Amino acid sequence: MNRLYLIPSDIGSDPMKVIPAATLEHIAHIGVFVVENVRSARRFLSAAGLKGHIDGLEFHELSEHTTAAAVEALLPLFGKGDVGLVTEAGLPAVADPGAPLVALCHAHGIPVVPLTGPSSLMLALMASGLNGQEFAFVGYLPAKTAERRAAIKKIEKDSSARRQTQIFIETPYRNDALLEDLVGGLNPGTMLCIAADLTLESETIITLPVSAWRRKAGFKIGKRPCVFLILAK
Amino acid sequence: MNRLYLIPSDIGSDPMKVIPAATLEHIAHIGVFVVENVRSARRFLSAAGLKGHIDGLEFHELSEHTTAAAVEALLPLFGKGDVGLVTEAGLPAVADPGAPLVALCHAHGIPVVPLTGPSSLMLALMASGLNGQEFAFVGYLPAKTAERRAAIKKIEKDSSARRQTQIFIETPYRNDALLEDLVGGLNPGTMLCIAADLTLESETIITLPVSAWRRKAGFKIGKRPCVFLILAK
Repeated sequence: MNRLYLIPSDIGSDPMKVIPAATLEHIAHIGVFVVENVRSARRFLSAAGLKGHIDGLEFHELSEHTTAAAVEALLPLFGKGDVGLVTEAGLPAVADPGAPLVALCHAHGIPVVPLTGPSSLMLALMASGLNGQEFAFVGYLPAKTAERRAAIKKIEKDSSARRQTQIFIETPYRNDALLEDLVGGLNPGTMLCIAADLTLESETIITLPVSAWRRKAGFKIGKRPCVFLILAK
Repeated sequence: MNRLYLIPSDIGSDPMKVIPAATLEHIAHIGVFVVENVRSARRFLSAAGLKGHIDGLEFHELSEHTTAAAVEALLPLFGKGDVGLVTEAGLPAVADPGAPLVALCHAHGIPVVPLTGPSSLMLALMASGLNGQEFAFVGYLPAKTAERRAAIKKIEKDSSARRQTQIFIETPYRNDALLEDLVGGLNPGTMLCIAADLTLESETIITLPVSAWRRKAGFKIGKRPCVFLILAK
């Protein structure tokens, strides 16, 4: 029975350094890939040991805009052999597209094999020092200022009521606007962690109470991939 | 400045297969380890390339029972060199001890470096086909039957209200009792995934609506490490 392999990609560093041997070995035997973006998937697979073999591979695109019918149309691929799912950075189907294809496989009895690789959310959570026994990932906060500020108060309340670390992300060019709203809107005793450029030389991970963030007024994250985490009292 | 390296361990398979090169390289240069259990950490580090060098390493234990004062007493270790944190299986400080040591490092300006390795929670989530855009990890459900059944209804309600995949774990010998309560207590349309023996040959990942689980009455997980996930309508 052919399978769907869920293949994590690097989050900015050398794939040969952060993708383990078992994952690299599976990549090497797969001929058909469903990917978020063909160009970057080719670049990743090439750097992950397939350099020189890319032209013999078959690629199909799947993004968050792919319709249910178009996902269903991928089913015949499993008649050809094993299929690999690769998204833009990190884990397929976690804060990234792919879940509808995985669900389709379950519905048709096609085995799904998740492989190990970097997860920016888990790297950020383990390095935050915040509660790793209970946590929630809430995705992106609203882009509009008033709604974003209301969402910040809501997740702080949830964090406090449930003792959950609340994890969220932002489009990089809005990182510093979000940081400003967090530092301005959260309670002084709430812990706030920012984790930027994970796995890179420029990795920056800072956890401080909001009261201490207020004394770091000049600090900018910049347009770097960043995970935000809060834990309220 | 010496650092705290957060070192994921394998979750049952060969460390050389699931721990990436960057993580193995960091392990090789660290002389002082804070570990959940010395015996199993030695076994892991030996299999992760330190065979023959274990006797020259220094080990200190840290578990969920370690007091705040005992965690604080680990601070002088950072005067000796880099320190590695290793827990029983998977990621330190995520559904495992370690967060108080990480928090102590942040409070003292000691850089924290999270390394890549297997996370049973993320492997289960990506392979579940359930919502990976919003999810919550709620730890262990209560052991007592009545409380556990009430907790199941509560997380189903939360899942429905927040469109969150709810992730939880159980002590392996209670897996099948929990599965029975889930299949009996959840709504027929709620999706239930079990992910057992992740990264092993015997890996079993099944996602079905509760109505279909009810027709699999003979199915047993057994005493295998298992992650449970639900997504309610």
